[in-house]
Amino acid sequence: MVILMSESETIQQDIRSMAERAKEAAITLALLDPEKKNKALVRVAETIRVRKVDIIEANKLDVEQAKKEGQTKALIDRLTLNSDRVDNIADGLKEIATLSDPVGEILREWTRPNGLRIRQVRVPLGVIGMIYESRPNVTPESAALCLKSGNAVILRGGSDAYYSNRILVDLISHCLKESQIPEGAVQFLPPRDRRGITVLTQLNGLVDLIIARGSETMIQEVTADATVPVLGHGKGVCHVYLDKSADIEMAVNIAFNSKVQRPGVCNAMETLLVHEYLLYDVMPRLAEKFLKAGVEIRGDEKVAGLIPQAKSASPNDWSTEYLDKIVSIKVVNSLDEAIEHIRDYGSSHTDSIVTQDSKAADVFKKAVDSSCVMVNASTRLHDGGVFGFGSEIGISTNKLHARGTMGLKELTTTKFVVEGSGQIRE
Amino acid sequence: MVILMSESETIQQDIRSMAERAKEAAITLALLDPEKKNKALVRVAETIRVRKVDIIEANKLDVEQAKKEGQTKALIDRLTLNSDRVDNIADGLKEIATLSDPVGEILREWTRPNGLRIRQVRVPLGVIGMIYESRPNVTPESAALCLKSGNAVILRGGSDAYYSNRILVDLISHCLKESQIPEGAVQFLPPRDRRGITVLTQLNGLVDLIIARGSETMIQEVTADATVPVLGHGKGVCHVYLDKSADIEMAVNIAFNSKVQRPGVCNAMETLLVHEYLLYDVMPRLAEKFLKAGVEIRGDEKVAGLIPQAKSASPNDWSTEYLDKIVSIKVVNSLDEAIEHIRDYGSSHTDSIVTQDSKAADVFKKAVDSSCVMVNASTRLHDGGVFGFGSEIGISTNKLHARGTMGLKELTTTKFVVEGSGQIRE
Repeated sequence: MVILMSESETIQQDIRSMAERAKEAAITLALLDPEKKNKALVRVAETIRVRKVDIIEANKLDVEQAKKEGQTKALIDRLTLNSDRVDNIADGLKEIATLSDPVGEILREWTRPNGLRIRQVRVPLGVIGMIYESRPNVTPESAALCLKSGNAVILRGGSDAYYSNRILVDLISHCLKESQIPEGAVQFLPPRDRRGITVLTQLNGLVDLIIARGSETMIQEVTADATVPVLGHGKGVCHVYLDKSADIEMAVNIAFNSKVQRPGVCNAMETLLVHEYLLYDVMPRLAEKFLKAGVEIRGDEKVAGLIPQAKSASPNDWSTEYLDKIVSIKVVNSLDEAIEHIRDYGSSHTDSIVTQDSKAADVFKKAVDSSCVMVNASTRLHDGGVFGFGSEIGISTNKLHARGTMGLKELTTTKFVVEGSGQIRE
Repeated sequence: MVILMSESETIQQDIRSMAERAKEAAITLALLDPEKKNKALVRVAETIRVRKVDIIEANKLDVEQAKKEGQTKALIDRLTLNSDRVDNIADGLKEIATLSDPVGEILREWTRPNGLRIRQVRVPLGVIGMIYESRPNVTPESAALCLKSGNAVILRGGSDAYYSNRILVDLISHCLKESQIPEGAVQFLPPRDRRGITVLTQLNGLVDLIIARGSETMIQEVTADATVPVLGHGKGVCHVYLDKSADIEMAVNIAFNSKVQRPGVCNAMETLLVHEYLLYDVMPRLAEKFLKAGVEIRGDEKVAGLIPQAKSASPNDWSTEYLDKIVSIKVVNSLDEAIEHIRDYGSSHTDSIVTQDSKAADVFKKAVDSSCVMVNASTRLHDGGVFGFGSEIGISTNKLHARGTMGLKELTTTKFVVEGSGQIRE
């Protein structure tokens, strides 16, 4: 008997089989010896270095295609792999291998008066569906973080990065096979069409978590359809506030670095808030640097009055994530005004104050409710690698489960392990 | 001009205003002095003791109504407040006051080679919507846990417990007012109709978390409509497995206690798994105790063959949460068979092994992926109060954010606080 299936039934069945393999693998992964996981990670890191030329070659196909399609500079920047970036990926993987294993970690442990011994222990989540867009480094980094934390992962990268992702996944699969790790541990869902995402995000009972990393629109689309819980790596409307007491040199450096070092990513500054008091000391110098670096300035009246090249900011600008060489600048009269502006327009991602006044720093740290609040540091430093997590699977702008940069611990759940000697409830 | 609003617009506006008051209160609560919160909690506890007679009087109205409506014994048990239970509530509140404050707790703290000092700090979630059914003790316990963790809460208890909840909330509000805590901290959404739930669970930006505690159906309904994240306190198909090497006395006690001590709650045992080896030693004794206590036994063939009063279990029984004096019993040939049964039919809530064999205990603890795995203890002991959390806001059967009994820590999120001295990203 021949059973004819529609195309969408085939997609559904393919992805379900994939998830079943992942679930099967997850049972093995949860109990895997840490040494075995670490050796596999080092093997992947070394293979990435050895195959660097091929990886960059494959990446060029994606970059050329993106240019042909007239994609934005920001997208092309995120997409591009060069020698340094490939080295960074390999280094990150090696660092992950050196980190302590989160599985089995005891979070707390205590004994009750009735003699019950209670421990709260980290365990893997199970199967993670990773949906992301154009950055191909996300592929090996996510695979590595999931493996180390004992989870199986299904990677659904964007079509922009198809060739880059393909070669990276093939290479990882090969290394895992050589390390005797089940092939279901890391799988790749080709970005043929969006239906695959819908199927994947509705496999309750097989998939435990969806991580969505990309544009606001993409995250909203994924979340709307999903029945499996979604952690969104959402937009970053990040602020730097230059306080009245800021060191001018430091203020200029941090504001410039936060905007310019890599404008296409979520922890880049979008809005600069400047205390009126140091406007004349800081603004001309900073504006000169910005303009020289090709940054478009959209300022409020005071800024526009001071900097001839500045455009006028529209109300919309204050809540826009440019992901590009554009900065909105507003002059404020007080710390409170800065905090209020961040509360009203920010996305609770990363916000930094530059100040020499420890009281102002304390108020800012407490009152700004963002996943990361910084004092005298560039917003670009809110990053799993910089924090020492080896890498990050994303920066959560959710409040539940994980908030801010997500490393290994954030890919686990916990269970209570209770040991008694016959205790019952009276 | 007179603006006419439809009834549903009025509901919508009322609940939105309530949530706005809650959000306003949450900003104050997040920064509140721990002493002030603790004093308010003690005041509530003392007032509950003083007003005990009135509370039980109000509760009687609910209980009588439930009896008139022919509600199940399980529901009436959950609904009833007697002197002991009121004392327990007051004790729980006092215990919460003595616990260390979760807000500001530093989870980890480290310094990076570039000099950045990073701390991960607990902060309140913000506004919590608490949707629950018939247990009126949930009202003061949730209010207390939310207050202590710096969150505002909107309580939406079931209509079954209307009079009990009303008096408890009035009393709490009065105490908070006397303690100069904003009135928006604890609010009560009367259970007029289900539309209120839909509105509450869709107030993204105002409400940060919905906790749904009740029947499977209720949780599914809440989750289906909600756009705010929901933590479900889901069903408990809890198992006790009597291993080959179990101490017979202990086995009988734990199995009996897990089922009978309070059958109407989620951590009561529903299915008993007995190793064939000790069937004849344990089953007759245990069955006698069960039958004497009015417990209906639904067994597999072997159990039915041994215990004349036992009914035959249908396949459906293995996944049923009876919440009543009914137990399903299955004979297994091995630890592995027990684990597999739990994996196939359990709800990942609470599962206990009774054994003298530490190797068997280790395998069980690792292989059973439930929110709480126990060795030689009654499943009824998986409880915030028993664990020393003062109380619990529910037992999460989700894997994300919180798993198992949820106390103060589970009502918080975190933020990274990063302190630098001018660091930028190279």
